[in-house]
Amino acid sequence: MRGTILHAPGDVRSETLPDPTIVEPTDAIIETSATCVCGSDLWPYRGINKFDKPWAIGHEYVGVVREVGSDVTTVKPGQFVIGSFFASDNTCPHCRAGYQSGCEQLVSMTGCQAEAIRIPLADGTLVATPEAPSDDMLPDLLTLSDVMGTGWYAAKAAGVAPGHTTVVVGDGAVGLSAVLAAKQLGAERIIIMSRHADRQAVAREFGATDIVEERGKEAVAQIKELTNGVGADSVAECVGTQESMTTALDSARQGAGVGFVGVPHDVKIPMGRLFRNHVRLQGGGAPVRGYLPDLIDRVYAGDFHPGLVFDLKLPLAEVAEGYRAMDERRAIKTFLIP
Amino acid sequence: MRGTILHAPGDVRSETLPDPTIVEPTDAIIETSATCVCGSDLWPYRGINKFDKPWAIGHEYVGVVREVGSDVTTVKPGQFVIGSFFASDNTCPHCRAGYQSGCEQLVSMTGCQAEAIRIPLADGTLVATPEAPSDDMLPDLLTLSDVMGTGWYAAKAAGVAPGHTTVVVGDGAVGLSAVLAAKQLGAERIIIMSRHADRQAVAREFGATDIVEERGKEAVAQIKELTNGVGADSVAECVGTQESMTTALDSARQGAGVGFVGVPHDVKIPMGRLFRNHVRLQGGGAPVRGYLPDLIDRVYAGDFHPGLVFDLKLPLAEVAEGYRAMDERRAIKTFLIP
Repeated sequence: MRGTILHAPGDVRSETLPDPTIVEPTDAIIETSATCVCGSDLWPYRGINKFDKPWAIGHEYVGVVREVGSDVTTVKPGQFVIGSFFASDNTCPHCRAGYQSGCEQLVSMTGCQAEAIRIPLADGTLVATPEAPSDDMLPDLLTLSDVMGTGWYAAKAAGVAPGHTTVVVGDGAVGLSAVLAAKQLGAERIIIMSRHADRQAVAREFGATDIVEERGKEAVAQIKELTNGVGADSVAECVGTQESMTTALDSARQGAGVGFVGVPHDVKIPMGRLFRNHVRLQGGGAPVRGYLPDLIDRVYAGDFHPGLVFDLKLPLAEVAEGYRAMDERRAIKTFLIP
Repeated sequence: MRGTILHAPGDVRSETLPDPTIVEPTDAIIETSATCVCGSDLWPYRGINKFDKPWAIGHEYVGVVREVGSDVTTVKPGQFVIGSFFASDNTCPHCRAGYQSGCEQLVSMTGCQAEAIRIPLADGTLVATPEAPSDDMLPDLLTLSDVMGTGWYAAKAAGVAPGHTTVVVGDGAVGLSAVLAAKQLGAERIIIMSRHADRQAVAREFGATDIVEERGKEAVAQIKELTNGVGADSVAECVGTQESMTTALDSARQGAGVGFVGVPHDVKIPMGRLFRNHVRLQGGGAPVRGYLPDLIDRVYAGDFHPGLVFDLKLPLAEVAEGYRAMDERRAIKTFLIP
């Protein structure tokens, strides 16, 4: 089958790989209907996250079950399914508390930019859709595997509630998804920090009411001005750098929530400021599994289109161009068709 | 009048000072019924927090209104009142959001270990009790001015909810108050870290179900064992050191809340661990003003005795002995009678 190998920074290739097979009785094999490139794939692609040997990359997927292991009971061959970028048992105490991304049996998915994928812990990980989707629903459904679920967690961790003024730091696909999540969760005013016209357009479509093009202190001053000097009720930090975290913390009003989903890269928290501002900070890898049933329902209800974050569609064989386009910011997010 | 001056580390004196007078029309003057020494007073007393000149110390008080400024409308002479260690207007957006300790007009109280005190922003700061309390209610009511309100905030920021297993790090008066708060908020199991028999006894009285005498990694191992390897649902960090914060974070289950009220002294947050564990972190100076009406009601209802944290009662003139006893851990908390 066709899969994707990251050989070295900047060197990603579509290759013929062995077909996956059932290894554990709790596994399932799916035939991929769609996969995509994640902003986090760019960290190793750009050589910022180090790695020492070629590896099968990709962690977002939707597809049709081809085969299940002998212990799998909740999904069956032929069903269209979505799973998170983390496999989880969905039964341990952390899963039951709603943190499937902290599962005792957690497996980080990889090798998903491929025609077929082995899914560990299939019963816990996969959720079948009510019926097979039409092709034009695939982009919306594929986002639920990571990017939309991650934006959803950013908004939930930030404590977005009806009537809120919410700030979103980061205009990548996750930041844009956080805008959509904030809108769905009832935020009244949604301020996104963005300098790119294409991303601003998607943000507006998703419900952003204000766009701040400044960065750093100027951005914070602008947000304070937009909020009568008070600051935001909730802030989604969707980048993972010191600058983005500082901006997020400084944009928050007293006692606001800051949800952070950008994997922190050398980020330090100013404890004195956190103490003085009473900011409620929560982050991490999103417990996407827990959100899937609700988010699938929203997609099937017909008025929820997170798939708008995809602005480049390519055959899986052209995955390398998909990475290049995102690296060069010619594309927000690349959709890949096996 | 008699007041208290901290001249230098270890040198605190009861002295005759000028009687306070109304300065702003929003001020009130109260005659102190009781005051006390706070664990945080020990930071400058021990020379850890630096200061360059003698200053009037103390920030916890209850008393009777002697005089009010021309703009004060909510309290009047003769009423028994309690206020927070922060004066606040209780009307700004941060106060309205429940963060009076982040008020736009915030004034940190000081000079309260004295026979009379000037209270700024009296309308926002002071809450009158339903009736004049009996003498034996004074300890309970005095704790609401800081220590009990701070323990309450630690528990609220930690997200304590009915059925929780809650860990309290720190067995000072605030930690003990956090135990009582967790109990009142419905925690089922309350684990406190304490090595002192006197403090353990108060903790038990307040509702602690388990006591961990270990520290650091051994303490975390013990907590994990007590929770079937899962960790606590909520953690109150009531010390403010790196060790206490690390213990708090490591004791939390996935997605647990950690409320921190110990003023951070060179504390660094391990962002990778925070990200992996999804811990929800919130701290700061407690918004005690917001809790006063509820906590006063609990005291007047008769079955809520936070005043048990006081195990030494002295005349205000003997304040120096009150500091010494706490510094040497001969006393948990010193109650002072003007």
